[in-house]
Amino acid sequence: MTRSSTRRSTGAPGGGAGERPYDPAPGRRYPHLWGYDDTRFEFLDPRTVHLTGDRYPLAGAPLPHFMPFVEALLGVPAGPEHLQQTPPPPVLPEPVRAPAFLDELRAAHPGARIEDDDESRLIHSHGQLSVEEIYRLLGGGIPDRLVDLVVHPASEEEVLTLVRLADRHGVVLIPYGGGTNVSGALACPPRERRTIVSVDMRGMSRILEIDRANGLVVVEAGITGKELEVRLEQEGLTSGQVPDSLELSTVGGWIATNASGMKKNRYGNVEDAVLDAVLVTPRGEVRARPVVPRSSTGVQPQRLAFGSEGGLGIITRAVLQVWPLPETQRYASFVFPDFEAGVRYLRAVQAAGIRPASIRLTNNTEFRLGQALGRARRGTSALVAKLKKAYVTRVKGFDPERMVACTVVMEGSAAEVRQQARGLFGLLAAHGGLSGGPENGRRGYAVTFAIAYIRDFLNKLGILGETFETSAPWSRIHDITDAVEAELRRLCAERGVPGKPYLSYRVSQSYRTGVCIYFTMGFCGRGLADAERTFHEIEHRMREVVLEQGGSLSHHHGVGKIRQDFVPRVHSQAAIDATRAVKRSLDPNDVFGAGNHAFGPVAATASPDAGRVPDGTP
Amino acid sequence: MTRSSTRRSTGAPGGGAGERPYDPAPGRRYPHLWGYDDTRFEFLDPRTVHLTGDRYPLAGAPLPHFMPFVEALLGVPAGPEHLQQTPPPPVLPEPVRAPAFLDELRAAHPGARIEDDDESRLIHSHGQLSVEEIYRLLGGGIPDRLVDLVVHPASEEEVLTLVRLADRHGVVLIPYGGGTNVSGALACPPRERRTIVSVDMRGMSRILEIDRANGLVVVEAGITGKELEVRLEQEGLTSGQVPDSLELSTVGGWIATNASGMKKNRYGNVEDAVLDAVLVTPRGEVRARPVVPRSSTGVQPQRLAFGSEGGLGIITRAVLQVWPLPETQRYASFVFPDFEAGVRYLRAVQAAGIRPASIRLTNNTEFRLGQALGRARRGTSALVAKLKKAYVTRVKGFDPERMVACTVVMEGSAAEVRQQARGLFGLLAAHGGLSGGPENGRRGYAVTFAIAYIRDFLNKLGILGETFETSAPWSRIHDITDAVEAELRRLCAERGVPGKPYLSYRVSQSYRTGVCIYFTMGFCGRGLADAERTFHEIEHRMREVVLEQGGSLSHHHGVGKIRQDFVPRVHSQAAIDATRAVKRSLDPNDVFGAGNHAFGPVAATASPDAGRVPDGTP
Repeated sequence: MTRSSTRRSTGAPGGGAGERPYDPAPGRRYPHLWGYDDTRFEFLDPRTVHLTGDRYPLAGAPLPHFMPFVEALLGVPAGPEHLQQTPPPPVLPEPVRAPAFLDELRAAHPGARIEDDDESRLIHSHGQLSVEEIYRLLGGGIPDRLVDLVVHPASEEEVLTLVRLADRHGVVLIPYGGGTNVSGALACPPRERRTIVSVDMRGMSRILEIDRANGLVVVEAGITGKELEVRLEQEGLTSGQVPDSLELSTVGGWIATNASGMKKNRYGNVEDAVLDAVLVTPRGEVRARPVVPRSSTGVQPQRLAFGSEGGLGIITRAVLQVWPLPETQRYASFVFPDFEAGVRYLRAVQAAGIRPASIRLTNNTEFRLGQALGRARRGTSALVAKLKKAYVTRVKGFDPERMVACTVVMEGSAAEVRQQARGLFGLLAAHGGLSGGPENGRRGYAVTFAIAYIRDFLNKLGILGETFETSAPWSRIHDITDAVEAELRRLCAERGVPGKPYLSYRVSQSYRTGVCIYFTMGFCGRGLADAERTFHEIEHRMREVVLEQGGSLSHHHGVGKIRQDFVPRVHSQAAIDATRAVKRSLDPNDVFGAGNHAFGPVAATASPDAGRVPDGTP
Repeated sequence: MTRSSTRRSTGAPGGGAGERPYDPAPGRRYPHLWGYDDTRFEFLDPRTVHLTGDRYPLAGAPLPHFMPFVEALLGVPAGPEHLQQTPPPPVLPEPVRAPAFLDELRAAHPGARIEDDDESRLIHSHGQLSVEEIYRLLGGGIPDRLVDLVVHPASEEEVLTLVRLADRHGVVLIPYGGGTNVSGALACPPRERRTIVSVDMRGMSRILEIDRANGLVVVEAGITGKELEVRLEQEGLTSGQVPDSLELSTVGGWIATNASGMKKNRYGNVEDAVLDAVLVTPRGEVRARPVVPRSSTGVQPQRLAFGSEGGLGIITRAVLQVWPLPETQRYASFVFPDFEAGVRYLRAVQAAGIRPASIRLTNNTEFRLGQALGRARRGTSALVAKLKKAYVTRVKGFDPERMVACTVVMEGSAAEVRQQARGLFGLLAAHGGLSGGPENGRRGYAVTFAIAYIRDFLNKLGILGETFETSAPWSRIHDITDAVEAELRRLCAERGVPGKPYLSYRVSQSYRTGVCIYFTMGFCGRGLADAERTFHEIEHRMREVVLEQGGSLSHHHGVGKIRQDFVPRVHSQAAIDATRAVKRSLDPNDVFGAGNHAFGPVAATASPDAGRVPDGTP
């Protein structure tokens, strides 16, 4: 799938005669959306929605405030009458076949699990980009190029065979983890004429060893975060890695994306948590031994797997840190009169060396979204809630249109958690904050896992949205958020977007030297001549604004294809050349041809300042 | 300088007619040793030494216990009569001249500081390897190959010119920081026929910006740790980076070596502390912008500078984290009945999440070395010391030949330090530990900075010694130390080493998943046919034993040339190939031809298991 719908090429390789529809299993949910079959947002009546199933705290109860909130914020109506139907099965182009490759694979691994049905092919040809992938599919579109085969290796030996055969037969391999990528990294290059095989790693999900003496676990890289945590929990352990995609994404995917979990303050980002990863490339395995906490052994090729985005090889196993389950877990929430006050509080917390497992700060819009996802209130609880609100808004003078919320998870020994809580509450008053209670903290984190289901629901209502994130120095936060907001409003007005755009953001991670800002933007695409294209252009400009204001290209989503244009702005030409030299060394035939980040069609000339001596500003 | 004295080639390029002696400035200390001119160990009488100058807490007072300790431990006499004289100025070979290169350099930078005198050439042709470099020099030897010129660039522009001209004129550049390298990384490849220029970076020591808002400092990479700290302290700040070489080593050297400071628990290792480094290569600058706390932008070429050991380019600037000076600093020391008990204590401290800035554990020999560096005691203080010792050894039953010491530095807010101290003292009794008081803790750290002066002094007495370090999982600690100790004894007996070998070690860093073990080994080389070669072979075998027992090749000293043989054991062939591909991309003409780690003469074939699917053990 390409970055722009205008490039949907009907003449792409793999098309042609014999195209046929596919038929998803009857009764099954449309298999391209996020998450679990039993979980989706549905209208109960024209104004009330609920989340089906019982997986999430949010599920089950009517949510009467949500649709009014959406309509008010977007300035457009959004009712059952706007729901688009799930599209009929699309006509897929015939695959590009590789019989010799397949014969040899089957000869070497008679039990090899190989799929070439349309549903498998389509599922494995996209990630979870909201607009360029999911919205397009819901509108009946398909990616410009599809994978031709899906293979599910069951062992490292099978991966080695796959890589060797692909190299010999001129086949492309695209590693596939949980399918949750949001940078277009799973999309096939539209002009690829070779057979493309998606290598679905989820069959390799064993825990190979738990090493309690050294706090390590050795896993096959296809294990999902949820499987990992369920099985570690049985042993009284946790990896502490909690990306928002935890339920679906895999350890290999985390490494390939250089991912980040919400509890990184305690458990580290993926580069801290993973001591070792085996990367199988066409020219052999990249790894370093022994596995030790830290070393100094020259340039560190073993770190090449991190952020490789499928372009160098297949990550087959990893050694991760594990921790005993925390003795104590405690949630908290705080409200502040405005976002600026909240940011000052976060800085003070960092400066004081207080490191709760997670601390996040939502802007006012995201705060109100959280409120709008509240259930219908009955009896005393509603009364209490009203009283509390009255206290906050009337007595303390908080403006409901400006106030923001901070949510916290503390984990560790009772003493650690006590000390953290003392520190966090102690700094509150000086920054104009008030406690919002533990339950609101817990709820804030629970909502995180529902966001992608909301995205799918809004997509069906013709409302396009996407998240994007950046890391930035503390001093750039407000410049970035202000510039993004102003530019989004300007562009939506200029392009004739109906109603108003939606923009919310949170500080999702803090570091001593800055933060991760996580944005959600959206608008109603109804009536636009080419909504997908309009969205793409506006979103591209948003990322540009972030860069102009001193933010990074990405904190943890990666580059993939949608951010590829910006690679020369963030990496110098010599750096890009070195990256490509690594690629040529490990994968000279471009077996791993997904074409993400510097491995894809990046502008050959670097940014204007690439040759300059850098100035003194960081 | 090569790894073995047997390879000292008289036919090395750069030799030939016109060789002439050099004449160090009269009255000046022999300029090849460690540290400051005013600081050295000297005999006061045949049994008593002192440290001259007043830089160190250890300096000034007679140290009556040290030489008896040395003699007892090594089983050889060591008095003034064994002192070797500083050698006469050696005869240096003529330099390999590069007149066109020099002419163009002078034309572009008329003020360029260029040296070609013998003393500068010799100083810049070695680091601080105890035996292969310092002991050899003290014995009148010189490196197999010397640098031909020394240039001291004053600006990034001058570095860019140097690199461009070197690439054009076929000149080799070897970046030089504090000259404290202990892996042979500064040694010139003996067969290099091109002109070799040492690029002494210490003229580039400016602080370019202090960014308090984001806790960052931008520095030129030639600044030494001490300069950096002195100037930051004036601003109420610290980088917290305290490698043992702090006084002399540079920020650029730290990055190139992937160094580690003793307070990494609070301030991080160099890879944590440095957010950005500019690496100037013959094919342009490698860097990523903007400078942010963390990002996900594909493979990370900007990390190539870390551990590059001078082989890819010159690190010209860095952005480091800075911290406010700690509100509170507190030392502590503990004694344990034996090393095993001390290790159990360190693990318990880690498991409890207590992270003092530094916590170290010495083995019994190193504990006794610390005692032996005590001053002559008078009056009550001696009495108190005796009483304390009697309590520890008689009442508590500690064996002076087995007991060990743990030293701690806590830094941070008063609350943080209080919490850490409570945790540390709270775990003591359960592990059989006793407090040794803050003063012993402070002393333990102060001794660190005197170790290299002791090395120089013992070298002159014909006693060869070296430090080496490894990182290892917790579960491998005792296997590694036991195997190293047994093999050292066996080899020294086999080789007819006089007396007994010395071996001390400490756990200098701890991590959740393991530790850094820092060894010091030594023996008397008097009477051996080729002491340097014997030492080299024994030390090489020590490193091999560490690898066999699951330790890493290096925790923070790097690979350089003395560990180069082992590169194929710790990096897979594909990883080595990728590293070399980077090198060819950035430096196709091998301008940065120091030839360290994978960039040097590493065995072309990888280790026997490099092609295998790895087993489940980490």
